[in-house]
Amino acid sequence: MNVSDLDAYCTANRDRFTAELVDFCRIPSISADPAHAADVRRNAEHLAAGALAAGFRSAELIETGGHPAVYAELVRDPSLPTVLIYAHHDVQPVDPLDEWGSPPFEPVIVDGEIRCRGVADDKAHVWMHLKAVEAYLRVRGELPLNLRLIVEGEEEIGSAHFEELIGSRAQLFASDLCVVSDTAMHGRGQPSICVGLRGFVDMELEVTGPSSDLHSGEFGGAVLNPIEALARILASLRDGRTGRVTVPGFYDDVDEVGAEERARLGAAALDEAAFLELAGGIPEGHGEAGYTTQERRTIRPTLEINGIWGGYQGPGSKTIIPARAGAKITCRLVPRQRPDDVARKVREAIAAATPPAVRVAVTVRAGSHPVVTPSDHPGVRAAVDAMREVFGAEPILTREGGSIHPVEMFARRLGLPTVLVGVGLPDDRIHAPNEKMDVEQYHAGMRVLTRLWDALAVMLPGRAVAR
Amino acid sequence: MNVSDLDAYCTANRDRFTAELVDFCRIPSISADPAHAADVRRNAEHLAAGALAAGFRSAELIETGGHPAVYAELVRDPSLPTVLIYAHHDVQPVDPLDEWGSPPFEPVIVDGEIRCRGVADDKAHVWMHLKAVEAYLRVRGELPLNLRLIVEGEEEIGSAHFEELIGSRAQLFASDLCVVSDTAMHGRGQPSICVGLRGFVDMELEVTGPSSDLHSGEFGGAVLNPIEALARILASLRDGRTGRVTVPGFYDDVDEVGAEERARLGAAALDEAAFLELAGGIPEGHGEAGYTTQERRTIRPTLEINGIWGGYQGPGSKTIIPARAGAKITCRLVPRQRPDDVARKVREAIAAATPPAVRVAVTVRAGSHPVVTPSDHPGVRAAVDAMREVFGAEPILTREGGSIHPVEMFARRLGLPTVLVGVGLPDDRIHAPNEKMDVEQYHAGMRVLTRLWDALAVMLPGRAVAR
Repeated sequence: MNVSDLDAYCTANRDRFTAELVDFCRIPSISADPAHAADVRRNAEHLAAGALAAGFRSAELIETGGHPAVYAELVRDPSLPTVLIYAHHDVQPVDPLDEWGSPPFEPVIVDGEIRCRGVADDKAHVWMHLKAVEAYLRVRGELPLNLRLIVEGEEEIGSAHFEELIGSRAQLFASDLCVVSDTAMHGRGQPSICVGLRGFVDMELEVTGPSSDLHSGEFGGAVLNPIEALARILASLRDGRTGRVTVPGFYDDVDEVGAEERARLGAAALDEAAFLELAGGIPEGHGEAGYTTQERRTIRPTLEINGIWGGYQGPGSKTIIPARAGAKITCRLVPRQRPDDVARKVREAIAAATPPAVRVAVTVRAGSHPVVTPSDHPGVRAAVDAMREVFGAEPILTREGGSIHPVEMFARRLGLPTVLVGVGLPDDRIHAPNEKMDVEQYHAGMRVLTRLWDALAVMLPGRAVAR
Repeated sequence: MNVSDLDAYCTANRDRFTAELVDFCRIPSISADPAHAADVRRNAEHLAAGALAAGFRSAELIETGGHPAVYAELVRDPSLPTVLIYAHHDVQPVDPLDEWGSPPFEPVIVDGEIRCRGVADDKAHVWMHLKAVEAYLRVRGELPLNLRLIVEGEEEIGSAHFEELIGSRAQLFASDLCVVSDTAMHGRGQPSICVGLRGFVDMELEVTGPSSDLHSGEFGGAVLNPIEALARILASLRDGRTGRVTVPGFYDDVDEVGAEERARLGAAALDEAAFLELAGGIPEGHGEAGYTTQERRTIRPTLEINGIWGGYQGPGSKTIIPARAGAKITCRLVPRQRPDDVARKVREAIAAATPPAVRVAVTVRAGSHPVVTPSDHPGVRAAVDAMREVFGAEPILTREGGSIHPVEMFARRLGLPTVLVGVGLPDDRIHAPNEKMDVEQYHAGMRVLTRLWDALAVMLPGRAVAR
C-alpha cells in the first residue's frame, strides 16, 4: 500500500514531533526513587493528554499498588484486528550524575542525537506511537485496525503490579497481537526483530553449619566449613569441562532449535573478538560445548551464580569457620522449560549435593516463562516487511538472552503473541549516563508503524474483540 | 610455699579487679579495622597506665609500623630468673553484629560471665597478670623473679610487626622462659597446659572475569562466571570424601605423631556429642579420614576458607555475572611444615585449577611456623603444679589447633621456650558473637600466676639477664 501521504505528513510535522518528544523527556519519571513519585504521575498525565491529542478516543490513568499506568484506546470496529501496544513511561535513575555531559532531564540535540535520561528507554518509542496514530488519522481519517495502548509506569522496577493489572482489567487487553516497542535494532541501517526471550527462575540458597562462627585454629580440620560445602554444591551444578548444567533433568524440556534458525542466529552474531570486547575484555568465551557463543546466549538455558557471601569479607584476615554461607542463582530458560519445574530440579540437585555435616535451605523467589513467537507468524512477517521498506535492508530475526516480564505475562495469561518492534540502537547507553536516541531513528519508527498497521490490517487473522 | 596471704588480698579486692577488667573491655581495640586505630592506641595507653599502677617499674608504648605494643618491666635483680609474659591487647572485629545479645563493647555480667568482645581473647588474661603483680607487691613487697611484660596490639591481624619489634628491641625480650596467657583450659574444673600450637599461612585469592558486571540475561551461558570459577577452584583444594587436602605435596613434611601422644590426646578429648555441641550444634563432624576429631584439630594440618564474596549480596535479586569474586584461606600447619613452602604449593594448586577464561591473583599475607615445647620442661612442670593447686585436678598436657605467632617467633628467633598458661574455657566464643569470660576463671588465673612465680623462682635454671 502506498504510504507517501503518511510520510509527507510526518515530514511536514517533523520539527514539532521532535519538540514534543523533548518536552516529554523533561519530566523526571524515575520509578525507583520514591521522591519522584509525583513526577511519574505527572508524566502519566502528560502522556494521557498526548494520546487524546493524537486522536485516541479515550485515555486514562490506571492506578496500581505503585505508579500509574496509562491506557488509551481507539477501537472503532470490533470486526477489525486489534493490536495491543505495550511500552513504559518510567525511566531509570540517573546516577552516576557526574558522568553526564548535560543534565539528564534537560534534553539537548547534538550530532543528530537527543541526549537525556529515558529518551531511548522508552520515551521516543512511546511518543512515536502517538505521532504515527496522529499522522494516520489526520491523513486517512481512520485507522485500518483497532489499537489499545498500555504504557506501564513500573517497568524499570520489575513490573511489580503489572500482572495484577492484567488480571483485574483483562478486557483492556483483548487483542490479536501485542506490539512491544522497547528494544534496539541490530545496528544502524540493519533492522532486526526479536522473536524470542529467555525465561528465568531466581533462587537463593544458604548453607548452615555451626550456630555461630568458630575459630578456624581451634576447629579447623574437624568441622565441615559451610563455605567449602557451598563451593562444592555450586561447582557440582555444572560440568566445568563441557559447560553443561548437571542438574538432573535440566535439559529434559529444552526444544532443540532447527538448523535454519541456528544459521540465521549465526548470520546475526557478533564475531568472537567483538563479543569478547563487549563482554568486558574477557580472555575467552566459555559455555556449553557444541553451541556457538550466540546460541549459548539465546537458545540455550543456563544457570548463573549472581552473588555469593560467607564469613569475613573485610580487610586483612579473620580466622574463622563461618556459621553460614549463601549464594543467589538465576537460571535462564528456553522454550518448553518451566520455572517451577526447573526450580524443583535445581532444589533437588542442591539437596543431593549437600553433605550431612551441614544443612541447606533453598528459596525460590520469582520466575518467568520463556517466550518465542514463530518466525512465520503474520505479525512477524508484517513487521519484517515494514522494517525492510523503511530501512532498505532485510531485517534479521533475533532472540534475546534476557527476559521482558510483560511479554511473558501476555503469553502466559492471555495466550497473546508478541512482536518486538524497537528502533533503538545498540549504542543508546540505556540505563547508563548520557543515554541518547538518534533523531532519525525516532522519525523512522513512525514510518515503520504506519506501514505496520496497514500490513497487519490485511495479514492478521484474529478478531479478538468480536469474539 | 603458702600463698594464702596473696589469695586473701585477691579476695579482698575482687570486685575492683572485676570492675577494672570491665573498664578495659569498653575500649573497642579492633586492630583489623583502620577506623579503630585511635581506639587501639587509647587501649595501649590505658594498659600502660594500669601496669604502672599495678607496680611495674616502667611501662611504655612501643611504636611499630602498625598498632603500638605495650612493654612494662619489673627487673630488680639480674641474678634471678626472668620470665617474659606475652599477651595481646587488640581484639577481633564484631560482625555479625546482629547476633550479639548485647552491644559488644558494653560489657554485661550475667550468670557469672562477663560478656563482650575481647574479654577472653585476651583482655582478662592481660589484666589478671597486672592484678597478680599488684597482689604480690602489695603483700610481699617484691617479686621472687624478674618480669618483662610485652602486650602486642596486632595479634588478631597476624602480628604483622612483631617480628620486626623482636629484632629491633631484642634486649627487652632477654628471658629464660616465656609465659603466654591467651588460651583456654580443657574444661571447667579440668585444667590443661598447651605444649603445642599449629602454625598457619594466610592467603587471599581473587578471580577476575569481565571488566565490569554483565547482564546475566544477555551474557549468561557464554561467559565463565567468576563465582563459578572460584567455587570450582575452592572445591578442588580438598577431597570431599576423604577430607584430605589435595594440594600436591601438602602432607610431604608432616610429622606423624607417635602412639603415646595420640593416646594422651585421646584421653584428653571431648566425647563426640560434647564436641558437636561445642562446635555450635553441627549435625556431625567432618575431616581427614583415619584421624579422630581431636587429632584433626591439633596434630593434623588443614585448609579452611574464612570468607568468600562476589556479585550481589543485597536483598532480592540482581541479574548479573559479576566482574570478580574472592576468598580468604588459612592453612593450619603442624611440625616441620613451613608456611612459605605450603603457600607456594597452594598457590600452584590454585593456578592449576583456574580455567583460562578467567584470571586469578593470589596474595600471601602472613605465616607462622608450628611449635612444640617438651612436656618435661621445668616451665611446664611449674605450670602443672600451679594449675593443679588452684583447680584441684591434674592438668592435662594438650596441643592446640590454633597458632600464636609470637610463640613461634620466640622459639625461632630467640630460642625461647614457651609455656601456655591460659584460663579461658572452651565455650568462651572467642572470635564469635557473644564472647564471654567466666568471672571465676579470671580470678582463678591470678591465683595460678602468684603460685607460678613462686614455683618458677625455684625451678627455672636460667639466668638470662645475668648472662
